[in-house]
Amino acid sequence: MNFTTINPISNESLPGDFCESTAVDVSQACALAAEAAPFLRGKSGAEIATLLETIATQLTAVRDEILARVQAETGYPDGRVQGEFGRMVGGFGAFGQVARDSSWVEATIDHAEPDRAPVPKPDLRKMLIPIGPVGIFGASNFPLALSAGGSDVTSALAAGCPVVVKGHPSHAGTCALIAKAIQAGVAEAGFPEGTYQIVQGQGHEVGGAIVQHPEITAVGFTGSLKGGRALFDLAAQREVPIPLYAEMGSVNPQFVLPQLLDADSEKFAEGFFGSITLGNGQFCTCPGILFVPANSDVMLSKLAELVSASTGQPVLNKETASGFTSGISHLSSLPGVEVLAAGSLEGSAIGAPATVLKVSLADFLANREALSEEVFGPSAVIVVCPSASDYQEVAEGFCGQLGASIHGTEAELLENGDLIYQLERFTGRVVINAFPTGLEVCHSLVHGGPYPATTHSHFTSVGQSAMTRWGRAMSYQGFPDSLLPAALQESNPLGIARRVDGTITL
Amino acid sequence: MNFTTINPISNESLPGDFCESTAVDVSQACALAAEAAPFLRGKSGAEIATLLETIATQLTAVRDEILARVQAETGYPDGRVQGEFGRMVGGFGAFGQVARDSSWVEATIDHAEPDRAPVPKPDLRKMLIPIGPVGIFGASNFPLALSAGGSDVTSALAAGCPVVVKGHPSHAGTCALIAKAIQAGVAEAGFPEGTYQIVQGQGHEVGGAIVQHPEITAVGFTGSLKGGRALFDLAAQREVPIPLYAEMGSVNPQFVLPQLLDADSEKFAEGFFGSITLGNGQFCTCPGILFVPANSDVMLSKLAELVSASTGQPVLNKETASGFTSGISHLSSLPGVEVLAAGSLEGSAIGAPATVLKVSLADFLANREALSEEVFGPSAVIVVCPSASDYQEVAEGFCGQLGASIHGTEAELLENGDLIYQLERFTGRVVINAFPTGLEVCHSLVHGGPYPATTHSHFTSVGQSAMTRWGRAMSYQGFPDSLLPAALQESNPLGIARRVDGTITL
Repeated sequence: MNFTTINPISNESLPGDFCESTAVDVSQACALAAEAAPFLRGKSGAEIATLLETIATQLTAVRDEILARVQAETGYPDGRVQGEFGRMVGGFGAFGQVARDSSWVEATIDHAEPDRAPVPKPDLRKMLIPIGPVGIFGASNFPLALSAGGSDVTSALAAGCPVVVKGHPSHAGTCALIAKAIQAGVAEAGFPEGTYQIVQGQGHEVGGAIVQHPEITAVGFTGSLKGGRALFDLAAQREVPIPLYAEMGSVNPQFVLPQLLDADSEKFAEGFFGSITLGNGQFCTCPGILFVPANSDVMLSKLAELVSASTGQPVLNKETASGFTSGISHLSSLPGVEVLAAGSLEGSAIGAPATVLKVSLADFLANREALSEEVFGPSAVIVVCPSASDYQEVAEGFCGQLGASIHGTEAELLENGDLIYQLERFTGRVVINAFPTGLEVCHSLVHGGPYPATTHSHFTSVGQSAMTRWGRAMSYQGFPDSLLPAALQESNPLGIARRVDGTITL
Repeated sequence: MNFTTINPISNESLPGDFCESTAVDVSQACALAAEAAPFLRGKSGAEIATLLETIATQLTAVRDEILARVQAETGYPDGRVQGEFGRMVGGFGAFGQVARDSSWVEATIDHAEPDRAPVPKPDLRKMLIPIGPVGIFGASNFPLALSAGGSDVTSALAAGCPVVVKGHPSHAGTCALIAKAIQAGVAEAGFPEGTYQIVQGQGHEVGGAIVQHPEITAVGFTGSLKGGRALFDLAAQREVPIPLYAEMGSVNPQFVLPQLLDADSEKFAEGFFGSITLGNGQFCTCPGILFVPANSDVMLSKLAELVSASTGQPVLNKETASGFTSGISHLSSLPGVEVLAAGSLEGSAIGAPATVLKVSLADFLANREALSEEVFGPSAVIVVCPSASDYQEVAEGFCGQLGASIHGTEAELLENGDLIYQLERFTGRVVINAFPTGLEVCHSLVHGGPYPATTHSHFTSVGQSAMTRWGRAMSYQGFPDSLLPAALQESNPLGIARRVDGTITL
């Protein structure tokens, strides 16, 4: 069975047929990945880094072709796809650096004490090693940075794990081009075919088959709660359960303190408008709920003005457009909810007009669950509270979120330490005086959080630390030095930081 | 409903009735733990260390009472319970030291670059914070070191997580004494009651209720595959799934190379006999399968002699005894399996005689699954292979194990690098020239491994690194220094190793 992809600006099918992968295709890909696993395990961090750099060069060589296709399949503007292409290719460089550096393996050494009484102490050394073949699901909203060549893929390869990717059906052509370039890089670097493979499909079968394949040892997913939970359940129900790391989005609540608004309402309104419309709201970190104190009318007027004047941008696919329309319609129908402002929709066949809803705290609390559901796209619910002193209590009711922000003057922040630590309770990232969109990809980033933001709050799915998801802990006891992995050899040939006899040493 | 515990030497009920906890008891305990969580989150590593040290003192004060009870409930000899008591109390010291040191939080800092183009770089900092209330299941076989005051409990408290313990029904009295001492320590240190609580029960309901309680955020379990998997499934099926870290034992295969046996067959036989009978075989790391080359007759004769001369020791409870008897009887009935030797059973009403079975490689492979099943107690299956060159292929068939050993001369080890790395594939710990029993509890220990040894191979359940199971990742973006946790403040007041702008610094 074949399928095509759609240009959301024209609503027309794009050239290029994609074959729905079969169970046999998935099985072959997973078997090849399993064959490749010992090869990758045997490579040094430096060799893995070279692989990633070779792939980056191959991707860069077909930049124009990829950019044209991704624009056709997503309707994203020039700047967005150029920036995201840079982030994708940059990811290979950044994770290559982490692989080369090798300190991500958390090398730990405890020396023997042969004379210890009553029993001698053996030599024990520990590190993370690659878990094995990994399944990766591309996200719809980041067709470059979080898809067939995105950070789940890059972090897994960097950790030494072969990858089987499920391309996203709404940008299957982009995925195919990226996969071709990555496979060329794999071949050029002398790595086996099973290092990176892609399967495609519109239905749930292909993805389910990856998660259930016995050779797959872990899975990365970015997408909806419904999709992520379904795959998580499959992974947990296997005869041999495997970790399924799903990042499933959230509403990322924002809390604004009054003095900040007094100081510059317009600037805040502009910042908030920019954040909810960035990428046309199709960000996991889009701030979907904003809590403001009474007397925020100046800010709200400015925000309404900006939203009303906005023209629609295309959204990724028909499901996103219809989900947005029905989501907004449902929220608007709830008691006390009014549409503060909505933009127009022009220039794209499949689009979503920016929409901001307003509700009192009392009405929000009366329908809290419904009003806290993510409507994927450029929208937000603004909750007008009698006073900022209500924030603490309202914050206590939130379940897991990727991020949350508090906006205030320095004096206000110092007075609201309790609120800040209440936000910590339910998020993976607390942001002060900034909006949660626009992830800074670095070692300190946590793009994660308690369920339902993700399925495992110990890890992040973006940033260099994402690599540890693909490592398992391994101890070597009583090994002759020459048989130890380089990271654990006595002379520290990799020159990495290690915990030696309890103390981290350089 | 009340229950009592049994002395396995006399098969008589011990004094002391234990009340089967109700759903209401579990719910109250979990609610109190949730109340205590913010208090613990607010404590420094040094304050947590003081708590653990205070508990250690309280435990030491009732050492004699605990030792008497645990001996009555397990039949363990003096040396064993004294040693295990030391390990339990030592755990509070060791984890207290890790809490005080604070480097376990993996502090990571990326500084702002306000002038970066096209967008300024924000300040981001990351660390592990306590995940929240944790449920812990005590193991039957380590009533001190892995039970109500064992390393799951200690590591969780050290990480700042309140604990709800399910006592083990076969040593409920020991658990109650330990819990009383820990609670006295909690009170003395000024921590809230919810910091440590215990519920007791013989049935599955109490444990299920802990795993399913909405306030519980993670669970630690040590026990059987059947029990661990049932709880894992409950944890995964929750509305909000939580990680369930189960360590479920294994057969820890041993591979012996011929030159080593040529050099000293008797010493090897003595070592192996000691390992399978240590703690009467009731160790997760008991070596249940031994692969030897043809012409191992001298070693096998010596082993048979040792086993035949051995007298039985008591096992923990009737289930263990009957499981051992039926397990041995099942294995012995398989084609080609013969009893090489068995010890006698005297001096205890509930016991298990050391038993060693022998089978050819061909017959082993014909019934591999059955012969690879753990028979909990002092037993092993010895597989006589035509040649050590068969080991590589036989090793490829193993599923997840806690440990595996290879025994050889230095020359043999260097020739068998492939075999060593084949063992790595399915274990959490590869041991050279030693038996896997007798864990060295240190930072480099991995007491873990691929399923079914555990449910999550990224982590260890014993050793200081076990603490990271109870941490979740948290990012702080744009924080004023004074609002940051101490571990992330610019001046590094805790003096810990941190990754700063990509590089680990001291």
